[in-house]
Amino acid sequence: MPAPRQVFVAVIGVGGVGASFLSQLQTLSSKLSQAPSPIYLTLILLARSKKMLLSESYRPLSLSNWSDALSASTQPVLRTTELIDYLSTAPEKVVLVDNTSSEDLASSYPQILSKGISIVTPNKKAFSSTLGLWTDIFAAASNGTGRGGYVFHESTVGAGLPVLSSLKDLVQTGDEVTRIEGVFSGTMSFLFNSFMPVGGGGGKFAAEVKKAKELGYTEPDPRDDLNGLDVARKLTILARLAGLKVESPTSFPVQSLIPKELEGCQSGEEFVERLGEFDERMEKLKAEAAEKGKVVRFVGSIDVQKGEVKVGLENFDTSHPIAALKGSDNIINFYTKRYGANPLIIQGAG
Amino acid sequence: MPAPRQVFVAVIGVGGVGASFLSQLQTLSSKLSQAPSPIYLTLILLARSKKMLLSESYRPLSLSNWSDALSASTQPVLRTTELIDYLSTAPEKVVLVDNTSSEDLASSYPQILSKGISIVTPNKKAFSSTLGLWTDIFAAASNGTGRGGYVFHESTVGAGLPVLSSLKDLVQTGDEVTRIEGVFSGTMSFLFNSFMPVGGGGGKFAAEVKKAKELGYTEPDPRDDLNGLDVARKLTILARLAGLKVESPTSFPVQSLIPKELEGCQSGEEFVERLGEFDERMEKLKAEAAEKGKVVRFVGSIDVQKGEVKVGLENFDTSHPIAALKGSDNIINFYTKRYGANPLIIQGAG
Repeated sequence: MPAPRQVFVAVIGVGGVGASFLSQLQTLSSKLSQAPSPIYLTLILLARSKKMLLSESYRPLSLSNWSDALSASTQPVLRTTELIDYLSTAPEKVVLVDNTSSEDLASSYPQILSKGISIVTPNKKAFSSTLGLWTDIFAAASNGTGRGGYVFHESTVGAGLPVLSSLKDLVQTGDEVTRIEGVFSGTMSFLFNSFMPVGGGGGKFAAEVKKAKELGYTEPDPRDDLNGLDVARKLTILARLAGLKVESPTSFPVQSLIPKELEGCQSGEEFVERLGEFDERMEKLKAEAAEKGKVVRFVGSIDVQKGEVKVGLENFDTSHPIAALKGSDNIINFYTKRYGANPLIIQGAG
Repeated sequence: MPAPRQVFVAVIGVGGVGASFLSQLQTLSSKLSQAPSPIYLTLILLARSKKMLLSESYRPLSLSNWSDALSASTQPVLRTTELIDYLSTAPEKVVLVDNTSSEDLASSYPQILSKGISIVTPNKKAFSSTLGLWTDIFAAASNGTGRGGYVFHESTVGAGLPVLSSLKDLVQTGDEVTRIEGVFSGTMSFLFNSFMPVGGGGGKFAAEVKKAKELGYTEPDPRDDLNGLDVARKLTILARLAGLKVESPTSFPVQSLIPKELEGCQSGEEFVERLGEFDERMEKLKAEAAEKGKVVRFVGSIDVQKGEVKVGLENFDTSHPIAALKGSDNIINFYTKRYGANPLIIQGAG
């Protein structure tokens, strides 16, 4: 039987995602410690803005009352360079779990990886900002061309759906991805499935935005969903994994659903209040699509052969899987040489 | 930069799947040999029934004219035990690619793995026969609880779709799979999508079987599809990966579409010729489903919580993703604790 292994885990960010991760870590670490080839996951660092908890002599921090312990901590908050020093001198392999959406931390990934620290993260920033940062990350990582830590970011696209792993498998086994198309935002999915369901009906667009906000399907400020940038970041990541050299999430056409006239709104509340003034434009798009027997959806697409990436509204036949999507589900279609005319479709909660 | 690595590849079975694999291996090995961290895939053995080609001193066999070379070979055909001896004394790691559907070879997997030889295969037999064989395989394999070679069989379910890898990811990351349901046979998919398409129409069942056979969508003898055993084998594999101790593919209810009266047919031709005599039964099922606004599909399902596995005809609402399937596509729905009411759906060419 192989010797038991130990992995140190450092967690930054304890908001919704972070708290959920810590709860899963508790279950998983208890399971893995009892496996035939046990692995011990030891939490050695926990941080949120302005609070940090470091374990003494790498003894495991508690995974059950972490919240109180972190709040009560009076330890000084390390700066990123100090943090890297602390983690890189640990006597076991370290995985840093970045549950923030911090651009700052993301820009330190190449340095973190080059010190042999691995990174697991849902933070899109590192992989969807400049092409230079992407290149530096994978030049440092062992699952790139480097010899540093490993970097995994499966949930940066399609959340819990196996999107990136499937794309990587296709590429690594020599298939040729020709086109990728899908609905990559749970918010946009919900909005358009309600605004223009297959079979007719649906509410006015502004009313659907309001409803989605009330149900918690949007960001606190819905403009952060409607500007299309979140989808553009996901498309940037997918396109790069498919082999395209995408410079940044603003280097290709991205359609914003924020009317020009409302770009100056001071608050999200003001924006939602005034959005109804522009319902007529959306109704016109709806009528045009309906006339052709189609529905409107907010999609991202990548034409790998032409090197084209775009994000925005498109019309789909009512029998198309993208049209038939329900609730706030995501759907991703991979068209490849091997799959032929019928794409590989991955669909589910985003 | 890490030192270049070499992997020896032994291929048994050069039919449709085998020939296609060798063509992919040629592309892949040329690509990997030029990668920043090169890996050399060296073909050292090629075999089909009654022909075998072994490389001299582990020099690579040609991947371009393998067919002629194998036909011209006068080398003696090694028995399985001799084969294992030959492979286990090779000076590099060996991967055996089993492209056969041989039960015999499958039953040797535990012994092959225990000698440190890895196995990659689309052969369902090893994983869908007795629970004892399954247990022995994963007791020997390093990706089980053993220390032998690794075993990978992704394409035994859902062919080229990322079904098993997705299921393993769910289980390993601590999600709880509650139910799995889907269309697991391209043949059954094609037959029922043509027999009873959403929106009405469709041909008589026997005529659709005849058409599917002519188009090459069935096995040479369509009874090998219609008896449901192929789907039962796939369900056995999925259920075991989901944690159920399924004894064999005949230890749960499997509906055969071969009418009792035709079980004595001497040939596939006779069977196809006479199947039309029983069209009335299928038409009745069609009418009953249509009355409820549903369609008939041939599905496999696993209720993980109840420990129930079954294969056969079921009715689905026309808006259900399983009803909306097209052509000969497969679809697999994973219901899990994390995904909630909306399953993870994987769909595409099977």
